[in-house]
Amino acid sequence: MKNMVYIQSGGPTSVINTSFYGAIKEAQKHPNEIGKIYGSLNGIEGLIDDKIIDIGKEDPEQIELLLQTPGSILGTTRRKLPKDRHDPVFMQIIENIKKHNIGYVFINGGNDSMDTCNKMAKLVKELGLDIVVVGVPKTIDNDLACTDHSLGFPSAAKFVVNSINAMTMDASCFKIGKVHVVEIMGRNAGWLTAAADVLPEATRPDLIYIPEVPFDLEQFLVDVQEVYKRKGYAMVAISEGIEFPRETKSTRVDGFGHAQLGGAAADLCRIIEDRTDLPTRAVEFSLTQRAFPATISLTDRKEAIKTGQKAVQAALKGRTGKMVIFKRVSNNPYKIQYKLAPLTKVANAESVITPNLMVDRTRFTQEFRDYITPLISGEVKLVYKDGVAQMAQFKKELVK
Amino acid sequence: MKNMVYIQSGGPTSVINTSFYGAIKEAQKHPNEIGKIYGSLNGIEGLIDDKIIDIGKEDPEQIELLLQTPGSILGTTRRKLPKDRHDPVFMQIIENIKKHNIGYVFINGGNDSMDTCNKMAKLVKELGLDIVVVGVPKTIDNDLACTDHSLGFPSAAKFVVNSINAMTMDASCFKIGKVHVVEIMGRNAGWLTAAADVLPEATRPDLIYIPEVPFDLEQFLVDVQEVYKRKGYAMVAISEGIEFPRETKSTRVDGFGHAQLGGAAADLCRIIEDRTDLPTRAVEFSLTQRAFPATISLTDRKEAIKTGQKAVQAALKGRTGKMVIFKRVSNNPYKIQYKLAPLTKVANAESVITPNLMVDRTRFTQEFRDYITPLISGEVKLVYKDGVAQMAQFKKELVK
Repeated sequence: MKNMVYIQSGGPTSVINTSFYGAIKEAQKHPNEIGKIYGSLNGIEGLIDDKIIDIGKEDPEQIELLLQTPGSILGTTRRKLPKDRHDPVFMQIIENIKKHNIGYVFINGGNDSMDTCNKMAKLVKELGLDIVVVGVPKTIDNDLACTDHSLGFPSAAKFVVNSINAMTMDASCFKIGKVHVVEIMGRNAGWLTAAADVLPEATRPDLIYIPEVPFDLEQFLVDVQEVYKRKGYAMVAISEGIEFPRETKSTRVDGFGHAQLGGAAADLCRIIEDRTDLPTRAVEFSLTQRAFPATISLTDRKEAIKTGQKAVQAALKGRTGKMVIFKRVSNNPYKIQYKLAPLTKVANAESVITPNLMVDRTRFTQEFRDYITPLISGEVKLVYKDGVAQMAQFKKELVK
Repeated sequence: MKNMVYIQSGGPTSVINTSFYGAIKEAQKHPNEIGKIYGSLNGIEGLIDDKIIDIGKEDPEQIELLLQTPGSILGTTRRKLPKDRHDPVFMQIIENIKKHNIGYVFINGGNDSMDTCNKMAKLVKELGLDIVVVGVPKTIDNDLACTDHSLGFPSAAKFVVNSINAMTMDASCFKIGKVHVVEIMGRNAGWLTAAADVLPEATRPDLIYIPEVPFDLEQFLVDVQEVYKRKGYAMVAISEGIEFPRETKSTRVDGFGHAQLGGAAADLCRIIEDRTDLPTRAVEFSLTQRAFPATISLTDRKEAIKTGQKAVQAALKGRTGKMVIFKRVSNNPYKIQYKLAPLTKVANAESVITPNLMVDRTRFTQEFRDYITPLISGEVKLVYKDGVAQMAQFKKELVK
């Protein structure tokens, strides 16, 4: 009998621990096939540095709270595995896998993490080891290839949609309003920003700019002034990844080598104030959009649990080198099928918004809205204590 | 029989329409004393410019949705009434009050709005008019004098507390973390920022800076580096009103003549990056903190409804020139009494955090936390459609 190890990687989501929860629950149903349920601390780094914890030692009450705990409970990493298959790092990983008698490896993450997952699957295959590697999709950017959508995106979209909905009620009640520029996460893919287009006319953003459409600063200024003149305020949603000449652009990069973004709304507001006489307000949802538990989508929660379960079931069937994906069967009623896609196809590919989903450069089709709506539907009831949503806390004693 | 007019003024909150709802419901119970229920569009401006709507003409279903609708449904203003009692503006107001046969005026707002309320009460008294003027307290800043707390503050605090709670779970899961500087509304009073101190140790902000404590930039840099060294990340909460030398400080002022703030977190992050080698992330909750319906506090909702009712009851008793206030009887069980305070005492006074509520320059006492906890306790169930919290929409046909 072999043990399993679960790895959380890349940027967290509000349901990242929910798919882990699903995997734990499913694994516990197979005590004859899966021995210990291990967690690797800080993504793949736990397997490199032998920082492994035994989930069986954690308080069951805390495990239940995983359902509403954002952030990766096991810790995360943005570290990429080296290209050179002979790098000593791989031998460290294999050594620790053997030491802990691991037969099942689950990697939960987005594009870059699926690259890690793919490398791992290839490595163990090449070495002829009897180890199954399965990917669990996760990214609020919704840019993973081969799947209808990714876990975490629906809840982030629900926060974005409901926050813009509420902010617009606030922004529109002043006689002399402002141009609100709301910055939403999304480096190359505008799914999360565009999701706001599902709002009813009264609170739908006036203008939505996504990275897939080349950003024209002059046109933007014309657009904004037109809306403001007509409505007395403007609500503009932008993806962090839109490109325009920026004075303050940061040169920092993250562990995956991507430039750190953020501050685009503030920069655009400065430009609007310089070039027009309109008052502005920059809003950046920042971490709240991917962490806020009060707007977890019920669809997202249910699918996250099920995905964790499906990943374990796939592993038990020996389906290595695959990621769990969703195939949409219908919108109304909303129905999906759980399938598996080869990691070689998923790794480092990217799903973006295509022109057929847009009616003009800042507006989306009914088909797009019909795609989003079931994802953000349904509400969850959280466990609160004294007004504070309870967060899981693990002891994290290292396995010797 | 006289009509009533309701006025919403200053910055909105997530329950500003809930106290209005309470007033409407109470007024409807007194059809022999109160005729029409009018709303003045854009605060006092509606009474100046004769922009009055009849709430009786609005859809009852939309009136029910006021319970979860942020932003002032009647529109708001930051316009102050002139000091000179002979300004023609006052005669315009009186003319419209007479035209619409108004006997009861309710003004819902914060400090500046209570100044308007006070001026109105004095004016009608001087003119010997049989008109009652009652104030309804509202401000997320919680800085209104004479009352235990103000409506809107508890829900804003609940958002701030739960957002920092969630963000900390996210921020703390990276091996190489960042210094997060979270900017929270509060010009002169740090109540909303300090509320985050109720969080359990694991997610409580490491450092909290409020305007009541002089901000020492050098000490701040020392504090931040100490926390980061110890924890590998830092979560710092600041009030927008803390003062430090700022390059980008805006010179814009709002209608009440206050400098527009915001951007303090971004400025502090730039300073941290210049002066230390720590990576940072600036977060500004912006409008979401005062508008987000999913974290409306049940305490706040119940008290808002009741306050609207109490205001109408006070008006019917002829208690003019007063504001409804809360007096806390006990924390556990939480119990308050509704009282009235003279507007002359409330107007332009300010309640701030006093040193006895602090244990050191960034930490608060148990007494302070015991004050906050019941305010943010209890959750509300919102009406959602397709994942979107429903917002009230009024037709707003002007009364001729």
